[in-house]
Amino acid sequence: MIYTSETIEQLIEEFASLPSIGRKTAQRLAMHVLKMPREEVVTFSKILIDVKDKVRYCSICFNITESDPCSICASQKRNKKIICVVEEPNDVIAVEKTHEFNGLYHVLGGALSPLDGIGPEDLKVKELLVRLNDEVQEIILALNPNVEGETTTLYLAKLLKPLSINVTRIARGLPIGSDLEFADEATLTRALEGRVAL
Amino acid sequence: MIYTSETIEQLIEEFASLPSIGRKTAQRLAMHVLKMPREEVVTFSKILIDVKDKVRYCSICFNITESDPCSICASQKRNKKIICVVEEPNDVIAVEKTHEFNGLYHVLGGALSPLDGIGPEDLKVKELLVRLNDEVQEIILALNPNVEGETTTLYLAKLLKPLSINVTRIARGLPIGSDLEFADEATLTRALEGRVAL
Repeated sequence: MIYTSETIEQLIEEFASLPSIGRKTAQRLAMHVLKMPREEVVTFSKILIDVKDKVRYCSICFNITESDPCSICASQKRNKKIICVVEEPNDVIAVEKTHEFNGLYHVLGGALSPLDGIGPEDLKVKELLVRLNDEVQEIILALNPNVEGETTTLYLAKLLKPLSINVTRIARGLPIGSDLEFADEATLTRALEGRVAL
Repeated sequence: MIYTSETIEQLIEEFASLPSIGRKTAQRLAMHVLKMPREEVVTFSKILIDVKDKVRYCSICFNITESDPCSICASQKRNKKIICVVEEPNDVIAVEKTHEFNGLYHVLGGALSPLDGIGPEDLKVKELLVRLNDEVQEIILALNPNVEGETTTLYLAKLLKPLSINVTRIARGLPIGSDLEFADEATLTRALEGRVAL
């Protein structure tokens, strides 16, 4: 008789099944929902379903969208000569937030991970090659700086080399605001390797 | 054009409006929902509404319940001589998880906080006094060990003193598994004050 309400227990289970939410946080969230005005809960509930029903993947760049092609692929203001390759839709949001990139994207849907059985055929690699017409001049590889991201970067670089397209990768080095003293060896090594002339 | 889907943006907003969920976590949760099977999202969505529609407060102890009185108040197996007073329904769950308490509960719905304008009339204090019939022999005050909880404990102790009922409070001291060396002064002071004979 730990939970006096089965419905609350179910909601706690639902929240706890989401990534990065533990049991205690799930409990706090469920109690918060109980205190929310009913109409707000109805809105929340509706948006959850809406996301499943309205959101799809763009048939060109495989970013999330509600209209196909997505607003970035369809835009006349974007530079169609550059494609930034990322792992997930969240990475598109991260790059867009910099307001420094005006090209197009290509969302792979993950990174190569032989241990997890994820090979090139599980990612949107073929779909990237299809996009490489004469207009495209540069491919920026913006994958995560971890083992899977590295593997994918090297794989794509090798794959794209025979084509006459510039392939670049985003810089790895010390994050802004960090302390050189506390940087790990791998990061500092990359920062030294990637030094630029002043 | 940071978000290419308005619905995803709305869902991120919804998640981010919940306590202890930041913007980045909200983004990760929204992407997780997008990848969940539709029927699971429908269940989640339904349970949210169910919580608002089915869950009420017990008219005796003010814990959350789906039937009034709640399963604890209605149980014949619980010891009706002891009432454990707590701040929130979550605290009932915490005490129940110990499997050490077999009495009844009384959920105040918060703690006294003059700064936030929360006085005794905002809590279920009157409703506690109504429950104190001849059968009740002990009131255990299990409020949070912070300023508001202390204030409420002292207030209730003073209020209950004239009645011939034992009023106790849960012990404050070193948590199990902690280090005496790293205990803060206030906790160690309470632990010394609350020492027990061996």
